Amino acid sequence: MARNAEDALARLAAVIESRKVANGGDPEKSYVARLLHKGPDAFLKKIGEEATEVVMAAKDADHGADKTRIVGEVADLWFHSMIALAHYGLTPADVVAELERREGTSGIEEKALRKAKAREGLE
Amino acid sequence: MARNAEDALARLAAVIESRKVANGGDPEKSYVARLLHKGPDAFLKKIGEEATEVVMAAKDADHGADKTRIVGEVADLWFHSMIALAHYGLTPADVVAELERREGTSGIEEKALRKAKAREGLE
Amino acid sequence: MARNAEDALARLAAVIESRKVANGGDPEKSYVARLLHKGPDAFLKKIGEEATEVVMAAKDADHGADKTRIVGEVADLWFHSMIALAHYGLTPADVVAELERREGTSGIEEKALRKAKAREGLE
Amino acid sequence: MARNAEDALARLAAVIESRKVANGGDPEKSYVARLLHKGPDAFLKKIGEEATEVVMAAKDADHGADKTRIVGEVADLWFHSMIALAHYGLTPADVVAELERREGTSGIEEKALRKAKAREGLE
Repeated sequence: MARNAEDALARLAAVIESRKVANGGDPEKSYVARLLHKGPDAFLKKIGEEATEVVMAAKDADHGADKTRIVGEVADLWFHSMIALAHYGLTPADVVAELERREGTSGIEEKALRKAKAREGLE
Repeated sequence: MARNAEDALARLAAVIESRKVANGGDPEKSYVARLLHKGPDAFLKKIGEEATEVVMAAKDADHGADKTRIVGEVADLWFHSMIALAHYGLTPADVVAELERREGTSGIEEKALRKAKAREGLE
Repeated sequence: MARNAEDALARLAAVIESRKVANGGDPEKSYVARLLHKGPDAFLKKIGEEATEVVMAAKDADHGADKTRIVGEVADLWFHSMIALAHYGLTPADVVAELERREGTSGIEEKALRKAKAREGLE
Repeated sequence: MARNAEDALARLAAVIESRKVANGGDPEKSYVARLLHKGPDAFLKKIGEEATEVVMAAKDADHGADKTRIVGEVADLWFHSMIALAHYGLTPADVVAELERREGTSGIEEKALRKAKAREGLE
């Protein structure tokens, strides 16, 4: 077990990177290599599918089902997001840095809030 | 800037947690508090929407657009996933632990691969 | 070819209805019977997946690909929507009636417009 | 009320067509004109969002909520699909024709069935 999430996500990103055909990944032996080899439509479709599965697991939890299924579905969603990131030469560290940048920028939540209020005021 | 992602994700999770109304969050002042206060449909809808935005940014990148927009869209997707996790008493650390567990379990990728091959063999 | 879409959609809905196990549908022989037999998560997941495929086909068309692929993807999306409708005892005629009802109701588009403007004014 | 679904969908498609700026539609006065004027990302995002809302309404119905909400959400999904179709010079009649074509083609459901069985055999 990694000592922190960064280590874990970075190591998983490295495994995904190693699955690229250019890096020796074998689409006949690796699921990730296969998705990367098939190209964007293959893994982007999975992002849409996994997002839907998160929503379904959450709705079931709302009605009494085990909440831990949500963890597995979010893991699937983030995992396929990381495959997409790898394809485009991006990393989960980039995403975390972006999240930190926003957290550190005053006004971000306020703007989203104004938009949300405007929407609701008209609903 | 945090020293590692665990710090970053854990700290962001703590901020989200503090936005719960039960913890003093104010739906009139905080976007996260507002989403949490409105309930699951509000943030689950955003997960579907943000997943679609990741797909659109990726397709645009396939056709030459700036790839960094993908980072912002994945950040949005993960951020709203974290709001959902918080609502259900879960954390990004749970998700990362699940990803690590899978990475450490032999056979996981092989099974996904067999399924992918079976699908494709019939396409 | 049917003379009109009501014939076509109603007939397709009737075919889907006949695929329910209660109506003699065989999950071993029919894709629709199988989805209906597996239950909501099976066909709802497909709705999320097919919506993503519509988006991808559209983005490709924006960049010069054949637009007719969009027709096939929207057909997939509507088809799986109709499987869901059947499961819940609803029909495409209900959906078309709702669309007509809205068209006939003044103010519907105006309200959606006010919401859209409010959102954009803050973007 | 139209006498059949084709009339209704064709008339709605004509209304959408008339909302194009090139046809005199005014983004300041019409929601559809505004979406069309903003371009693909605006209405494609809505398709992802509305698909998610169909899924949520269906899951709620599974747990006892009113099923008629599903009709409204599918209507939203189809409506925004039609806006996309219009943008690309396509019509709901094209989609219905595609659905009819498939219905008339033997072997379509059988192939989808083989794929579904292959997937499940490995689950």
